[in-house]
Amino acid sequence: KLSSTGSIMGRVFADYSVYKGKASLSLSPVLPTFTRMEYGLRVDRQGKMMLRFCPAVGDRKYDWEKKQLFALSATELGSIISLGPKDSCEFFHDPSMKSSNAGQVRKSLTISPTQDGNGYFVSLSVVNNLLRTNERLTVPLTTAEFAVIKTACSFALPHIIGWDQCTSHQSTTNGEKSWKVGSLDSDSEWNR
Amino acid sequence: KLSSTGSIMGRVFADYSVYKGKASLSLSPVLPTFTRMEYGLRVDRQGKMMLRFCPAVGDRKYDWEKKQLFALSATELGSIISLGPKDSCEFFHDPSMKSSNAGQVRKSLTISPTQDGNGYFVSLSVVNNLLRTNERLTVPLTTAEFAVIKTACSFALPHIIGWDQCTSHQSTTNGEKSWKVGSLDSDSEWNR
Amino acid sequence: KLSSTGSIMGRVFADYSVYKGKASLSLSPVLPTFTRMEYGLRVDRQGKMMLRFCPAVGDRKYDWEKKQLFALSATELGSIISLGPKDSCEFFHDPSMKSSNAGQVRKSLTISPTQDGNGYFVSLSVVNNLLRTNERLTVPLTTAEFAVIKTACSFALPHIIGWDQCTSHQSTTNGEKSWKVGSLDSDSEWNR
Amino acid sequence: KLSSTGSIMGRVFADYSVYKGKASLSLSPVLPTFTRMEYGLRVDRQGKMMLRFCPAVGDRKYDWEKKQLFALSATELGSIISLGPKDSCEFFHDPSMKSSNAGQVRKSLTISPTQDGNGYFVSLSVVNNLLRTNERLTVPLTTAEFAVIKTACSFALPHIIGWDQCTSHQSTTNGEKSWKVGSLDSDSEWNR
Repeated sequence: KLSSTGSIMGRVFADYSVYKGKASLSLSPVLPTFTRMEYGLRVDRQGKMMLRFCPAVGDRKYDWEKKQLFALSATELGSIISLGPKDSCEFFHDPSMKSSNAGQVRKSLTISPTQDGNGYFVSLSVVNNLLRTNERLTVPLTTAEFAVIKTACSFALPHIIGWDQCTSHQSTTNGEKSWKVGSLDSDSEWNR
Repeated sequence: KLSSTGSIMGRVFADYSVYKGKASLSLSPVLPTFTRMEYGLRVDRQGKMMLRFCPAVGDRKYDWEKKQLFALSATELGSIISLGPKDSCEFFHDPSMKSSNAGQVRKSLTISPTQDGNGYFVSLSVVNNLLRTNERLTVPLTTAEFAVIKTACSFALPHIIGWDQCTSHQSTTNGEKSWKVGSLDSDSEWNR
Repeated sequence: KLSSTGSIMGRVFADYSVYKGKASLSLSPVLPTFTRMEYGLRVDRQGKMMLRFCPAVGDRKYDWEKKQLFALSATELGSIISLGPKDSCEFFHDPSMKSSNAGQVRKSLTISPTQDGNGYFVSLSVVNNLLRTNERLTVPLTTAEFAVIKTACSFALPHIIGWDQCTSHQSTTNGEKSWKVGSLDSDSEWNR
Repeated sequence: KLSSTGSIMGRVFADYSVYKGKASLSLSPVLPTFTRMEYGLRVDRQGKMMLRFCPAVGDRKYDWEKKQLFALSATELGSIISLGPKDSCEFFHDPSMKSSNAGQVRKSLTISPTQDGNGYFVSLSVVNNLLRTNERLTVPLTTAEFAVIKTACSFALPHIIGWDQCTSHQSTTNGEKSWKVGSLDSDSEWNR
């Protein structure tokens, strides 16, 4: 199976991970998917930043089987990128939203500054009323680790919203009119 | 139709959109077009950032037909990227500029901070003397949404001025003189 | 002539330009050139950011023939990228350096904040003792224009030092050892 | 040998170097290597930022043979990227870690602000108990040079953790399900 640029497709597993006393946290970008339409490519499913928490089960051993996931949208990522040193933020997800189990599982991600101001706590809480479980996994981040996350997520953000695809389909005109890359609009603003 | 990198051309539709009570706002970059000259490629039409406002016509329904567009230039984008939390900015466009209808339609885009300092109002006003209409569409943005816009527009800016094309035409010399990528100038500054 | 990525080579002319009362200023990145060595590619000539000033010769007309160039190195670009709102910087170039005419032509570029703090003056002075000329071209920049320059130059900087080439020659191993991309060093630090 | 994008592989030698009175300092990114698995590509060896110090042995001459290396991890790079004008940081490496010589060689890298606040000292100390040597190489950096390092390292960071590979394997769906790029997880968070 070939991608549009001719390379062999497949998943790429590249995480940024921190391993701490009680849990590990791994981040990896998930790109949007596109659908080919008559007039070009359209985003089919939004991209996201996947967070994976694994509980520690020994000295620097983490249980992959008990992992908990939390997928940040572009706007949630915007919260993290713009987080000041004393700011905190919280996101709520219902993984069963729009299904009959809506409201039965509640995930919340909290990022709050440490008391000494030299980092953050990232905490994932999963309350599952169906399984009657209530889990919380917390990973402390140093300023350096959070700087990596901010920088890497700022890099990933335009890719998550698909704008890197706009830029890689650059056309070259030769007198004739080129395809416009962007939106399906016609308006004098296009001709500015 | 093939682009210079061999991929199939076509429009790519990737917007960053926010949907609010009275209107939606979508942003998507529009790349410059190039003309092939004897000596290389030259920007033919400047790139821009296209803003599309659609009025709400029901619960999370927006009327695409009544959309209003506003295309930001690189310098206007610079205003937005450098906007401080208490700053505001305003741009005026005349879509009929240089035509016989000049001055008949006036579009203005205003970005101003919310009173609580936790976001901005983005407001597009379109006064059309020909149709005797006067529309205003306003979308409130949270800090997180504005952080996405700042980050994504900072990513898009070099592409909008065409500098990503300079970098993708990297030559490799092998003793002989390589093509210079840049400007059509000759001066000792080139040999520094 | 084909580049290493298979596309047709040639100059790409993409400037960011501002046109003011007394002069215009255009910026465009000039990439480094590489020489193919036995063991890989090595930077042959450093990249730079080319600034071109043209004097105004009428209402929004600028004299290309009388242009003056100034090529910023990576470190000089670092000065501009890190310039605070009240900072100024100055660079001196001798285009005849290391020739018999050394010292006869002196170019200096000054960037200084405007009195109201809402922008900068960019001023190029060229004193030519051979031609007995003394020219000064000054372009005022708004905050928005300087934000474009900062953002675009931050994008260009890694390309100017050739680091985008390091990243585009990503190898994929399949059991066997891959080529290391980076420096010609052997040390246990490589195996960390 | 061909890379996945079809270009001829090889090392690329592109450093950012500063040459000072007592030593030179060169930085160059080292990309991660990937292993092809049944289900895609996985990072095999982490990327890093390689620092190379060479002692001066004359007027602007530096002894390559006596170079000392220090490889910064992604998180160590995060420290540098987030370093404030009055901050300092220090990293310790044991190049023989996990071998029988563990503890015999100690490398430490210190970055500390200059007294006037207009730059930093970057200092590498190598204490080798086996060879009974004790070396220290120090390079002063101006604000402009440090701005280049910050900007270039921020660019390199996502590449060092392999996220640029996630983004270059963009798939295009055509009705059928695309490969997910990211992590080997299945969870409703994937379907958000």
